[in-house]
Amino acid sequence: MSTATTTITDLRINGERLWASLMELAAIGATPKGGVCRLTLTDLDKQGRDLVTRWAREAGMTVSIDQIGNGFMRRPGRNNSLPPIMTGSHIDTQPTGGKFDGNYGVLAGIEVVRTLNDYGIQTEAPIEVAFWTNEEGSRFVPVMMGSGVFAGAFTLEHAYAATDTEGKTVKGELERIGYIGPEVPGQHPIGAYFETHIEQGPVLEDHGKTIGVVTGVLGIRWYDCVVTGMEAHAGPTPMALRKDALQVATTLMQEVVACAHRHPQSDGQNHGRGTVGMVQVFPNSRNVIPGRVKFSIDMRNASDALCDSMDADIRAVAARLSAQTGLPIEITPVSAYPAQVFHAECVEAVARAAETLGYSNMRAVSGAGHDAVYMARLAPSGMIFIPCKDGISHNEIEDAKPEHITAGCNVLLHAMLERAGVVGA
Amino acid sequence: MSTATTTITDLRINGERLWASLMELAAIGATPKGGVCRLTLTDLDKQGRDLVTRWAREAGMTVSIDQIGNGFMRRPGRNNSLPPIMTGSHIDTQPTGGKFDGNYGVLAGIEVVRTLNDYGIQTEAPIEVAFWTNEEGSRFVPVMMGSGVFAGAFTLEHAYAATDTEGKTVKGELERIGYIGPEVPGQHPIGAYFETHIEQGPVLEDHGKTIGVVTGVLGIRWYDCVVTGMEAHAGPTPMALRKDALQVATTLMQEVVACAHRHPQSDGQNHGRGTVGMVQVFPNSRNVIPGRVKFSIDMRNASDALCDSMDADIRAVAARLSAQTGLPIEITPVSAYPAQVFHAECVEAVARAAETLGYSNMRAVSGAGHDAVYMARLAPSGMIFIPCKDGISHNEIEDAKPEHITAGCNVLLHAMLERAGVVGA
Repeated sequence: MSTATTTITDLRINGERLWASLMELAAIGATPKGGVCRLTLTDLDKQGRDLVTRWAREAGMTVSIDQIGNGFMRRPGRNNSLPPIMTGSHIDTQPTGGKFDGNYGVLAGIEVVRTLNDYGIQTEAPIEVAFWTNEEGSRFVPVMMGSGVFAGAFTLEHAYAATDTEGKTVKGELERIGYIGPEVPGQHPIGAYFETHIEQGPVLEDHGKTIGVVTGVLGIRWYDCVVTGMEAHAGPTPMALRKDALQVATTLMQEVVACAHRHPQSDGQNHGRGTVGMVQVFPNSRNVIPGRVKFSIDMRNASDALCDSMDADIRAVAARLSAQTGLPIEITPVSAYPAQVFHAECVEAVARAAETLGYSNMRAVSGAGHDAVYMARLAPSGMIFIPCKDGISHNEIEDAKPEHITAGCNVLLHAMLERAGVVGA
Repeated sequence: MSTATTTITDLRINGERLWASLMELAAIGATPKGGVCRLTLTDLDKQGRDLVTRWAREAGMTVSIDQIGNGFMRRPGRNNSLPPIMTGSHIDTQPTGGKFDGNYGVLAGIEVVRTLNDYGIQTEAPIEVAFWTNEEGSRFVPVMMGSGVFAGAFTLEHAYAATDTEGKTVKGELERIGYIGPEVPGQHPIGAYFETHIEQGPVLEDHGKTIGVVTGVLGIRWYDCVVTGMEAHAGPTPMALRKDALQVATTLMQEVVACAHRHPQSDGQNHGRGTVGMVQVFPNSRNVIPGRVKFSIDMRNASDALCDSMDADIRAVAARLSAQTGLPIEITPVSAYPAQVFHAECVEAVARAAETLGYSNMRAVSGAGHDAVYMARLAPSGMIFIPCKDGISHNEIEDAKPEHITAGCNVLLHAMLERAGVVGA
């Protein structure tokens, strides 16, 4: 028993094989700048799906497809009445995307299975690797479409009806590439879900850590804000008689940032984010005092309570500013995504695997959405982050180090084995 | 002698006649919203010029046109070797312009002559009324083209070569409408120059004054400013690791306003202006931290020394901000117009006329450019402002009260008579 345990602990994936698969998949839709353009439900997406499912079959897995085109690649366990321990991600990319976003999570799962095959290891529960349709949302909205339908966040009909800029529908394109399966989305048990992903941010790199043990995904609140002043000629209008919408708007824009700093967690950590990304000034003329400014507000935090508190804070600041200046300020909610805390059993499985394997690691949060957010509604879930160069993603220059790619996959292997159980270990 | 002086002091223009002429001219290019669209050197501009010169001839004036299409309508004095006492403005409008901007200054001059005719008054020096080509600059740049060529600010050839969006040239259009005259621009003596104009700002209305005794025109400094950060995903990037170009840019935008407040004159009055009118955010996406922000800076003040001081101030603030944040800030000058102080003899003539006539009045500055700025390089000059509704101009809803129109023209009459001298008075 002790010998067997040592053997399992010493198990490592084949990093070179994983890297080679990543590069082979990245060739489908490769861009001249070293990135990938493989938009969901295109011919290139079909080529990618065909390659990944061929690899799965070659590794002895069975493949099933559901009605929204999600794929489930299964390696049986000893007890196939147990729900599978699942990993996965997506293989669609942004128009100017990179090689790793999503693709890494799917191919890491296949590499876990290949490794188990290499060593003839049988798991108690089955292992599954999923690829979710249209995570990126570049061609069709909503984003995270396949996992969202699977989790019941919206209906299959809603997803089917989505159209791209040419008017093509999700359903039509799924049929065209041959990836509508018979399975009803969501009618597929899951014992636990893990997702390995590049961080898409700079925190791990900044801290010099190899593994991010992801504890949850930030809640998001989006707003549009409009400040209304009075446009007037920049020359003849003295400062005291102005109703400069931009002067008021810039004050509020700075408060969006300050608001994020004002909302730490009770443990002192602060995952608050405040961003103004989009600004429109009217009439946007050099010598006209702006009469109206519209801008976006993106606020995030680790819990819904903190998001609520940021919401109340920025509204109160805006109300005060409006009262002080006499300029109307409208804040309109655009959309909101709840915060997701991952499950202790999965978070700790990831943490234990990283520790056992001797990888430097830290607790991390995900600031962006992932398919794991929807899976966490259905089953215990967790995520594994690895660093990406300069925190850059959704960009052709997205990059990750082979040793980090390998490390993340090793953590995935051991976390999945902990949850699935090893026969004879 | 004392009786004659009383007679002159009691002289008043015919406000109803002036108003009727303003409305008749405003019918040429009238817009449905009550404004005027009479762009320079169009068929409508020709109609306007034809009407105004017909009125001048009917009032016994001679008309001469120079090579840039400026018109000089002359009423002889007793001593025609004296340089004329001149008034004038422009009759071209903005695309969505009003009835009064420019037009008032030209027709007030004609009304002065009509009034002198009514009362059989002969002046010592000749009286002239000018209309300057293309003051607005909407169709052809530079603005204040006719007076600029006249004053030698730029050459006739430069002005001739200017093209509109259809590729038509100033020279071609002047020829087409028949308004290229033989006179060499600038070869026309001026004894003194007055210009009557709506204020185009809210100061007189705010102070409840009828007449603005304009002491000068603010100097203008235009800049483009670029703040460069690093674009990154709004979710995964913690506040401490951001290089948010907008956060730095909004700080500097607020300093542009603060800079204006920091630059009063030595007498405590503050004519400083600071405006950010135009903003472009890159990539301008809701969930991307801005990587670059470009914005305009418009700074004005009553003297070149104060403009220089504002220039040094905002550059120092930008340098400090850049050092604090590590984000590069570039400030590039775009153009500069020197401040113009009007001449004491003309300013005081306007002030005396307003006082003698019993009109409430105040010293004022012009924040916008006028043809009078160029005339001030050639001859003693001054301006008379009257209020316009809500300070609005360059807009179809531009409006002025008949009693203010009348008052401004009465001030013009008496200021011009003081400078021209009245025979027998």
